[in-house]
Amino acid sequence: MTLSRRRFLHLAGAGAAGVTVSGSLAGCSDDSHAAPQDDVVPFHGAHQAGITTAAQDRLHFAAFDVTTGSRDELVALLKSWTAAAAAMTAGHDVGEFGAMDGPYVAPPEDTGEAYGLRPARLTITFGFGPGLFEDDDGNDRFGLADRRPAALVALPHFAGDNLDDARSGGDLCVQACSDDPQVAVHAIRNLARIGFGTAAVRWSQLGFGRTSSTSDTQATPRNLFGFKDGTSNVKAEQTEQLNQFVWVAAGDDSAADWLDGGSYLVARRINMHIETWDRTSLQEQEAIIGRDNKEGAPLSGGAEFTTPDFERSGAGDQPIIATTAHLRVAHPAQNNGSHILRRGYNFTDGSNGLGNLDAGLFFLAYTRDPLRHFVPLQTNLARHDALNEYIQHTGSAVFAIPAGVAEGGYVGSALFT
Amino acid sequence: MTLSRRRFLHLAGAGAAGVTVSGSLAGCSDDSHAAPQDDVVPFHGAHQAGITTAAQDRLHFAAFDVTTGSRDELVALLKSWTAAAAAMTAGHDVGEFGAMDGPYVAPPEDTGEAYGLRPARLTITFGFGPGLFEDDDGNDRFGLADRRPAALVALPHFAGDNLDDARSGGDLCVQACSDDPQVAVHAIRNLARIGFGTAAVRWSQLGFGRTSSTSDTQATPRNLFGFKDGTSNVKAEQTEQLNQFVWVAAGDDSAADWLDGGSYLVARRINMHIETWDRTSLQEQEAIIGRDNKEGAPLSGGAEFTTPDFERSGAGDQPIIATTAHLRVAHPAQNNGSHILRRGYNFTDGSNGLGNLDAGLFFLAYTRDPLRHFVPLQTNLARHDALNEYIQHTGSAVFAIPAGVAEGGYVGSALFT
Repeated sequence: MTLSRRRFLHLAGAGAAGVTVSGSLAGCSDDSHAAPQDDVVPFHGAHQAGITTAAQDRLHFAAFDVTTGSRDELVALLKSWTAAAAAMTAGHDVGEFGAMDGPYVAPPEDTGEAYGLRPARLTITFGFGPGLFEDDDGNDRFGLADRRPAALVALPHFAGDNLDDARSGGDLCVQACSDDPQVAVHAIRNLARIGFGTAAVRWSQLGFGRTSSTSDTQATPRNLFGFKDGTSNVKAEQTEQLNQFVWVAAGDDSAADWLDGGSYLVARRINMHIETWDRTSLQEQEAIIGRDNKEGAPLSGGAEFTTPDFERSGAGDQPIIATTAHLRVAHPAQNNGSHILRRGYNFTDGSNGLGNLDAGLFFLAYTRDPLRHFVPLQTNLARHDALNEYIQHTGSAVFAIPAGVAEGGYVGSALFT
Repeated sequence: MTLSRRRFLHLAGAGAAGVTVSGSLAGCSDDSHAAPQDDVVPFHGAHQAGITTAAQDRLHFAAFDVTTGSRDELVALLKSWTAAAAAMTAGHDVGEFGAMDGPYVAPPEDTGEAYGLRPARLTITFGFGPGLFEDDDGNDRFGLADRRPAALVALPHFAGDNLDDARSGGDLCVQACSDDPQVAVHAIRNLARIGFGTAAVRWSQLGFGRTSSTSDTQATPRNLFGFKDGTSNVKAEQTEQLNQFVWVAAGDDSAADWLDGGSYLVARRINMHIETWDRTSLQEQEAIIGRDNKEGAPLSGGAEFTTPDFERSGAGDQPIIATTAHLRVAHPAQNNGSHILRRGYNFTDGSNGLGNLDAGLFFLAYTRDPLRHFVPLQTNLARHDALNEYIQHTGSAVFAIPAGVAEGGYVGSALFT
């Protein structure tokens, strides 16, 4: 019991018997083996991990209210969170085993339920909400009001929104992604624990079954409507698109100096009326989406990655891809060429008391400028998308995502200097 | 689009590029490869699958209210569910693609979100609640009242219970377990859809990170208190214990003729006050559990699987394993030798509105006689277990689990003949 709590993984090597492995595309196919280091995504770098990282299979996302009024305590929290995130993503526990006061008489520094599990590509991504810069009454809580990026404002109301305040907003956010849900839950839990007295969980969301691929190495997954989702997503390999549509650059009107190299995150909890959808004919479903179900090809022809032909007409001179089809309304060609990097997850939160599943899509999108790229797109979708009959937005939040952390630094440090 | 919707797995073989693999102990270690058939657990057999099956990593559990008054419709539902379960566990969809009325003009028979995914050891296990035999007003709804097994009665109130009616009871239950949560959710969703008009979801629960191993091939996992759980569980390999404590046998006082070869399932949603636990010293935590955290060894000495020495005293002649330690109070030696087969899962259902995680253990136990084996044990735990300060039971249900299904039969058929 006086042993260091470095994980079993590190004591015994990743091939040790008894270690449960959550494989992924890259990690567990018949012709490629996951080396131990494949389980670790580097925490430090120019950008935060968890954005262009090939999307992991599971998500635990939490939004926090900051409960302290002290700027020093806020900074101390960010330093502690950074250290804990660097440790956990590398496969270590968040601390030694009761080491502060000698063994045994203190609570364990780590809660332990991930002990012996591999990190399974754990990434932890931090963000700052509008409330950190100014509270609802306009108070400059931490002396940050004049450093608020211009685009970090609450999203406008969109047609059809039915937002639950208890599932919206937040001063801070943490996105934990891993191929193992117990590892992702462990991460959020231990960060929440470290925040005790400084920040409290406002809402959280679990997700499974990523709904977008963020790398050319991944197949396009399916959402709970049974259709492929995110075919034309921005991918990690598209450096030019990332620079144009994801990473904030010095001099951006919408940004602030400290956000250089960062991004914005838009989170939307989208309930899907899946029982209603399931009673809709396949023909209607495909007309609504604008793609065929099986292959995910545009109804105008071709295969999944064929560019849709929005001009092509069918019977009665009507466009084959309907004017209200989701594919058309959401397509960059209909939105001034805007792209976003989506990184959402399916969710099922039990039942809703009416015998229906409380299920849907937890939409996460990284964007260089939410006002320029997300708001016009969502305005367009809210007005015209045929899918609106089957979905309802029930939660919403926006965060500024600081650049990556250098060794020895802490997340968001540029904001506080 | 006129192709059969047999899964991609079957068209292209399991090693096809682009198929995401969720590995498990047996399926994805460095020295053993998952053959395609390792992903399939046989549906048909003497007992239902999902009981002694080596516990999968993910759970979706649903309890249903039967909404029809027709015995024929109830039987038809069980037949349809059986056919769908046999198909899905084998890696097929639940039906052809709009085949009833030709392609396209009917809703798809399968909702599609598991299309292209491997079954990942999917099992689907069905059960019958007390309400199927007699409703709350004492009505014999389906002519089954005189066939109710004696032990199929609502559990008594236990000290400390704080049960939510909306998370308790149910006429029917379905336990779907898989190493892939999207596959488990897909199964429950499609069964709920088939039940439309006949049965409605009353409550459901998702779980991750099995909290018990049910086979000697599995390492003991950890619960959300960070401790190993289920070290002395009944395992698939222990045929004698299974016959004594899990399978109902002809002539059992507590049973009924049609339940021969079946079992009972007790489900309890146990919320864990993990934030309070996390502020408790390691010494206190280990004293409450009766085992050390790291190895899971009894505090009386040895290793994880060493038999606890409840007589051994330490300082001041006090027993080393406290009289209220969970290990002692729950141990078969303190409960007339009763064993149960536990098959629970960790859960995290977001936050509870007070900044704490709504998290805990969804306890599932299979037992030959809940009145003889579970009720005395739980009475003992509710009165004496030191862990009660950190947990609260918030949901409860009991179901009779019919024997396995033969090819061509349907689940529970013996009850209706």
